[in-house]
This record gives sequence, C-alpha cells and structure tokens, in this order.
Amino acid sequence: MLGTARSEKFKTKEGRTEAITNLELNNIEGFICIGGDGSFKGAQLLAEEMNIPVIGIPGTIDNDMYGTDHTIGFDTALNTVVDAVDKIKDTAGSHNRIFLIEVMGRDAGFIALDGAISSGAASVLIPEERSNIQLLAEELKLQSMRRSNLIVVVAEGDDAGGAKDIYDKLIPLMEGYELRYTILGHVQRGGKPSAYDRLLATRMGTYAVELLQAGVTDVMIGADGDRLTTVSLQEAVNNKAEPDLSKLNVIKLLKTVS
Amino acid sequence: MLGTARSEKFKTKEGRTEAITNLELNNIEGFICIGGDGSFKGAQLLAEEMNIPVIGIPGTIDNDMYGTDHTIGFDTALNTVVDAVDKIKDTAGSHNRIFLIEVMGRDAGFIALDGAISSGAASVLIPEERSNIQLLAEELKLQSMRRSNLIVVVAEGDDAGGAKDIYDKLIPLMEGYELRYTILGHVQRGGKPSAYDRLLATRMGTYAVELLQAGVTDVMIGADGDRLTTVSLQEAVNNKAEPDLSKLNVIKLLKTVS
Amino acid sequence: MLGTARSEKFKTKEGRTEAITNLELNNIEGFICIGGDGSFKGAQLLAEEMNIPVIGIPGTIDNDMYGTDHTIGFDTALNTVVDAVDKIKDTAGSHNRIFLIEVMGRDAGFIALDGAISSGAASVLIPEERSNIQLLAEELKLQSMRRSNLIVVVAEGDDAGGAKDIYDKLIPLMEGYELRYTILGHVQRGGKPSAYDRLLATRMGTYAVELLQAGVTDVMIGADGDRLTTVSLQEAVNNKAEPDLSKLNVIKLLKTVS
Amino acid sequence: MLGTARSEKFKTKEGRTEAITNLELNNIEGFICIGGDGSFKGAQLLAEEMNIPVIGIPGTIDNDMYGTDHTIGFDTALNTVVDAVDKIKDTAGSHNRIFLIEVMGRDAGFIALDGAISSGAASVLIPEERSNIQLLAEELKLQSMRRSNLIVVVAEGDDAGGAKDIYDKLIPLMEGYELRYTILGHVQRGGKPSAYDRLLATRMGTYAVELLQAGVTDVMIGADGDRLTTVSLQEAVNNKAEPDLSKLNVIKLLKTVS
Repeated sequence: MLGTARSEKFKTKEGRTEAITNLELNNIEGFICIGGDGSFKGAQLLAEEMNIPVIGIPGTIDNDMYGTDHTIGFDTALNTVVDAVDKIKDTAGSHNRIFLIEVMGRDAGFIALDGAISSGAASVLIPEERSNIQLLAEELKLQSMRRSNLIVVVAEGDDAGGAKDIYDKLIPLMEGYELRYTILGHVQRGGKPSAYDRLLATRMGTYAVELLQAGVTDVMIGADGDRLTTVSLQEAVNNKAEPDLSKLNVIKLLKTVS
Repeated sequence: MLGTARSEKFKTKEGRTEAITNLELNNIEGFICIGGDGSFKGAQLLAEEMNIPVIGIPGTIDNDMYGTDHTIGFDTALNTVVDAVDKIKDTAGSHNRIFLIEVMGRDAGFIALDGAISSGAASVLIPEERSNIQLLAEELKLQSMRRSNLIVVVAEGDDAGGAKDIYDKLIPLMEGYELRYTILGHVQRGGKPSAYDRLLATRMGTYAVELLQAGVTDVMIGADGDRLTTVSLQEAVNNKAEPDLSKLNVIKLLKTVS
Repeated sequence: MLGTARSEKFKTKEGRTEAITNLELNNIEGFICIGGDGSFKGAQLLAEEMNIPVIGIPGTIDNDMYGTDHTIGFDTALNTVVDAVDKIKDTAGSHNRIFLIEVMGRDAGFIALDGAISSGAASVLIPEERSNIQLLAEELKLQSMRRSNLIVVVAEGDDAGGAKDIYDKLIPLMEGYELRYTILGHVQRGGKPSAYDRLLATRMGTYAVELLQAGVTDVMIGADGDRLTTVSLQEAVNNKAEPDLSKLNVIKLLKTVS
Repeated sequence: MLGTARSEKFKTKEGRTEAITNLELNNIEGFICIGGDGSFKGAQLLAEEMNIPVIGIPGTIDNDMYGTDHTIGFDTALNTVVDAVDKIKDTAGSHNRIFLIEVMGRDAGFIALDGAISSGAASVLIPEERSNIQLLAEELKLQSMRRSNLIVVVAEGDDAGGAKDIYDKLIPLMEGYELRYTILGHVQRGGKPSAYDRLLATRMGTYAVELLQAGVTDVMIGADGDRLTTVSLQEAVNNKAEPDLSKLNVIKLLKTVS
C-alpha cells in the first residue's frame, strides 16, 4: 500500500522513468490505482511506457467519475453532510431563519444533490443548473411560512458562488429574515468510512486482484448498483459523470408537501 | 403517517373490517405499507377485502425481503455493527484474544455477512451455512498467529446458536485463548438513519405516490442497484431472499492475506 | 416545559404583566429558568414584579456564565468541534497545509480554547488575547517543519476577525503554503447531548426542584467541579466569566514537543 | 510512549531488574505511569528498587481509582453507553417491553450509575447495593404503566449477576412482558476519546511533566472537579473508590415524575 501525493515530477517523462525503475526494482508486476481522473491519466501513461498491467479503482468523495454509480468515499462524505445538517436543524426552530450550508463539489453537484435530498433541504444549488438568486429568495419566503429552519445546500462550485457569496446576495433580498452560513470544507474529506464504503472498497479491491490474475489491464472497476463492472480507463477518463438531475424533482415535490 | 404495532385483532376478519371502516371514514384512497413480510400479508388482505390500492415499501433492518437489493434500515444497522466492531478493535491488541459479536438475523445472515466483510472480521457464522465449531477453533488459532483481536460475527439465528452458545462451545477447544462476547441486541434497531437509508426512503416514498397516482396497486417497490423497480406483493411475500453467499469468499480471501 | 424565543414584548412592563397573568392563571408557583445572561435578567424582573421564586440553570454552549465551571451544552459543542477537527486531520497529511477552523464565541474564547487543546491544534485565536497575524504566520512556518496538517482554531469574535478574515490576512504572508478554512457555525448548536451534559442537566434540574421546595429563590445553580453550588442571580449576571488563560501554556508546550 | 501489556515476568524481582536495566540503558530519568491499581503497584516497586521518580496518571474506563473524581477513559465509555441506550429507545415504544443493558464494572458501579442517570434509565443494578429482583419486577410493572421502553442498566459485577442472569430471574416474575437484553462488553473499551477525556489527558500529562521537573515523585495526579491535585501512590492504591450513592436518589426521583 503506497501513500500518494500529487507530483509535478511525475508529469515529466523523466519522472515517470524513475517511477518505472522503482517499480521494476521492487518486482511490482501489477498496479492498482485508487483515485480519480488525474490518477488514472498518470496510471495510463505508466502502463504505456512500462509494460505493466493497470487496474483503476474509483476513489474520490466527489463521485464525479464516469463508469460507476458510486466512488469510494462518497457515502462517507454524504453522511458527514447529513450529520451536519441534522445538528443545524436541532437549534430552536424559527420561521424566518435560513441556513446556507456549503458542501464540496467544484465542478459537480453530486454531494450537494444527494446531501440535500437526504437531509430534507428546502433547496439546492449545483453547478449543473443555472442558479437564480432572486427566485431562490422568493421560494424561501414562501416555504418559510410552512416550515422553520430552512436549509439551502450549496455546492462550492455553483455558478452563483459559494455559501458566503449566496449569503451576500440574499441579504438585500430577504429583509426581516435571519440568514446564517456554514462552510464544511475539509471536514467532508475525513471521518471513519461508512459501512457502504467499506463494502465497496473491499469488494472492488478483491475484484482488482482477480482481474490482474486473469490478465486484464487498462480498465477501471465500476459499480452498477450492487454489481461490479469494468470500463476502459480511456473511456472513464474521457467522459464526464453527470448527476441524475431528475432528482431535483424530488426536492421540488418535497417543497410542496412539507 | 400512522405508527404501528403488531395486532392480533387485525388477523381476524372482524378486526380488518374495523380497519377498513376507519380508512373509509377518513377518506383514505390509497395505502402505502412500509414493513416486511407480515405487514405486506396484512396489506394484501386489506386490499382484497376493501377496494383500495396498496403499495408496499420494504422497511426492515434485516434486509430479508425478496425483490429488492436493500430494505430501508439495513444500511443504518450495518453502520451500527461496524461502529461496534471498530470500538472492540480499539482495545489494546493481543494475539490470543478473540471477540464474538452477535448481530441480528433470526433467519437470515444479511447483517452478519455484510457486517463481517465491512468490519474486517476473521470469520462469520450465518444461518444459511452449516457451522462447524471444531473447524472454527482451528481457523482462529491459525489466524491469531498473524493478527491480534480476532472478530467473529455471529448471526443470532445461526444453527450453532448465538454468541453465548458459541462462546460456551469454543472455551473447551481454545485453552490459552481469551474469549469475550458482545450481544448487540436492539441497539441495531435504532440510531439516526444513514444518508443511504434516507435517500432510499425518500425516493421510494416519492415513487409510491407516483404509482398510486398512476393507478398501480398490489406491488412492492424494490431497489435494483440505484434503480427503483416493482414486484407484485404476491411474489415478494412468497419468495425468500437469500444473501449472496459468494461473499463468503471475500472473507476467506481476507483470511489468507491479512 | 416551555419552549422559548427572544421576545421584544417581554422587555416592556406590559409584556411582563401579560407573562405574569399567564403564570398566575396556570397556578405556576415557581420558575426554573434555563439560559444565559439575557434569560436571567428577564427572570429577575419577573421575580421582582410578581412574587414568584426563581431558580436559574446555566444553559448555553458558550460557557460564558459567571458562577459555574460549566454550562449545559458546552461539552456537547466541544465534542462537535473535536469531531470536525479529527475529520480534517484525516485528510492525507502535507507539510505545507494549514487549516483554519472557526468556532463559536462572539465575546468569549471558551470553546476555542478547550477545543484547541483537546484537538491538538497548533494555535488558537481568542477574543481575550490580542492576535498578531505576522507572528502567527512565523509560528506556523516553524511548526509545519515538524508536523503536517496544522490546525488553527479561531473564535468567531477574535479581534483579528473570523476564519475567512484570518485566511485573507495569512495568504500574502505564507506563500508556498496551502491554506483552507472551515466555518462550523450552527452545527455547534445541535447534536445529541453528551453524557456529561445529560448528567449535569439532570443533576441541576433535580437540585432546582429541591431548592424551590426549600424556599430558595433568586439564585443560579453552578458547578464547582462535580459539586453543585449556588450564586445569586444578581452576581451571576453582573460578572463576566473568563476562560483560564493559563491553558494557553498547554498549547505552547505542545507546540515545542510535538 | 510505551505500549503495555500485563506481564507475569514483571511480578518477579528478576523481571523488574531487567526492566530497570532497560530504563537505565535508555537514559530514562523519570517515569509516568498511566493505568489503574495494578499498574501503580508495579510502578511503585520499580521506583523503590531503582531510584527513579514515578508519577501516576489514572487511566481506566471503570473510574474506580481513589484520589480522583474522574479517570481518563470514563467519559468516553459513558458516551458509548448513552449512545447504545438511545438507539434501543429509538425502537417503536411498547408499554410492556423492558430492556436490560449490561455495562462494564466488575467491582464498581460507576459506569452503571452515571450511565443510568444520563440515559434516563428506569432502574440500575450495581455491586455497591444489594439487588432485589422481586422488588425490581414490581417496580418495572408500575413504571411500565407510565412509560414505554423501560431500560434497566446492569453492572456486569452486580451481586444478582449480569444482564443474562437478571433476564433469567425476571422472566418467571414478569409474564406478559417482553424482555430483551444487550451485553455491550468491550465495545465500551474503544471509540474515539471524548473532548472531556482529551482535555483531562492533555492537562494531566502536562502536569506530570511539570511535577517531574520539580522533583516530585510517588504521587498520582487526580482531578478535583476542574482542578488537578496529587495524592500519594500509596494512598491511591490502598483505598477503594466509591461511587456517590446519593445519585441513586436522582433515579428514584425520576421514576416518580416521568
């Protein structure tokens, strides 16, 4: 098990030659790479330049990998978000109080979207959908007549900005309302792995070994529901994962009934 | 939202007639039943005797429902089991110490099996596989040469008994070893629902409403990976869910490498 | 048990007369007030204007009450802070990475100080001590040679600003370092109460009833270690609680050895 | 920082001579011993036979050390117990259901007593008080008319036995009631340390170093509320800690009002 860090050197031919020499010196006959896009691109280069089989395992809390329903770490991060929202909701309810909670997701709204649904948020802002702050303010005013402690989950990479930016934009539009914000940041990157992530990681790891033994290379393991699948590293890296935007309807439906 | 309890009265025609009258008095036009086998059998009777559409949602921590990969509550219970095992493993390691941990599962080993894999257990005893305590003792002795704080997850309904029974049977076979047991019991039935369970519950609930609106009746909603499906209540109730016994291989593989 | 909210009306003589009438109509013979400074001032006025005995119980996560070592809620909030820092520390260590974490404390550094010690922070900024950002930057550079993932706990009411302000000030002083910040916000106000807080609350509540039965009035219950004490509401309200600044030495000591 | 395990060898003069030689070879000039009775007895022998200063720090989840209000680990264990009881209470309430929960405490009822109060238990059985199972059954019947999901916390070393024994004795006395039991076991020995325990440990550790630097030896550090104190190791080891039995009144009071 090798710990890793981003390496500028590795991006050069010389750096990779050094890496290959190290792998050969240690009689490494196969290579299992756990990570996201960047890691897989490096792994592919290594596999080409050396002649070593490579298997990718998707490991990133952001869930933004093509070719798999879930990446390892996503479920743990979601539980951290839900736990934080639960704690915010515990505070004495007030009908004119609105909480903005910024979650990770520079380019993708996976955490924000599933985090919002599973924590019963009033609204969610994600990079995949154009945000309209004026409309958001109106909706929050409407909803606050029916519920207290409204939660808005904000992906850090939303086109309207992070929680602090949204806060600044909402303040002049929502006089008489009390707005607060929380920026979870790297809290989402840690914590004890959830049972789901452990199962996924154990199963994918076992499968990676089986694939190497069977002579397979240049694929990423994916999860199609509970079934493990494979997709070529090429395809995984060249495509963009998109969250299921039909889930926005679940939030809209909850708005009208709760 | 109606709270529920088992009712002897409901098992009689008179009891159900009373229930039907209550539903009619309250203008209930559809019926969403969250539960397991027993609840669904009752719901079916109600649907037949009255003329009301019924949708089932699988909600039981045991995961023993045919027609769905996961039931609502199972992921939360798994996390409780993993958390308990983590705490047990925190105690100062010793190479001759073995912990038996009894988890729920009167007729099915779902919690035990996934709990064992996700907590890195040394062994697991489930009702679906005949237990051999003599063999278990030999394996534990072998493994204890390589790892400390060995964990054995025991389903309460295992054919060799619960954790206390296994403990009594192992004691004479494992002189020189320190054996301890934990019986988790109803701790597994509570706790804050995990993100996974909340997502599943929210999505299944939304889908149930859509199905009722579309005139569908007598089906249980299932999860096929991330996709929601339906199966007739009849089929769901008449078949038995089986855990994926190939997962036992994951535990066997881990035994040899860890 | 009465839920509460800040009331402008209660600050007027008329508002309080209405409150008194309500208490009399309901045969309320004694009054246990759980809260902080503001609540106790109101309770005192009520006790004067009506003729009803009043006992105060210190309940605020900020711990800023004179006359008690601990207020109910403080231990729970501390555990939330420690949990968040633990999660941040879980991320892959890097020697040039610094995390600022903003905790509650508008006027007092109790949460920040105990939170910093119990989470092994590299530094802490509290309102009670003048902050020197230039010096902080130098210290962080020194410490980052010995430890990775340095944590700086920032009380929201620090004289140099909140975590975002400190971040903005540190950026130009720490080129080559990676700075991140987290703003916990109202996450600290919720969560399941810790065992410590439950014990304290149960014991103080029981004691309050005993005091009322014994004819005592106008006192706040305090905790002197494990012993329950009383202090006059007057004294509790007129004095300011100060954190034990000698605890800063513990952090300084940890800096030199870790 | 030295990891430890019980050592038979250390109980002999030869074993200790070996230990002393090792300490001298490594230029160890002082000795901080974290543990309970047994560890301190060993530390004292070492201090006598060698000429090395020794400071004791009370570290045991059982809290059974004379000379300190709290031992390191106790608060963490209490939180584990409270968390387990909370989860049990989450299950659908029923007025004839009683849960027995066995907690650690072979000779002392500290965990059971504080665990019972902070989790709102209906009753508690501790070694320090003679248990009357007949009376317990009557009380539970009375209480079950007013509350659902009654909890009885049982110290493993109670004179009437552990949870399983109490269960066996209650069954014939409580026909028509549903009894369940949970045996937490070593789950209580692990888990992430609570904020309280971290603060206590950090402060005691710092103080131990200061004491050694000041030439103090043969004392155990204790906590008198928030103040750190010292007591001679002799006195600490020769006296027995007793829980505050007046706390039983809190439970009795809660029985009558809830």
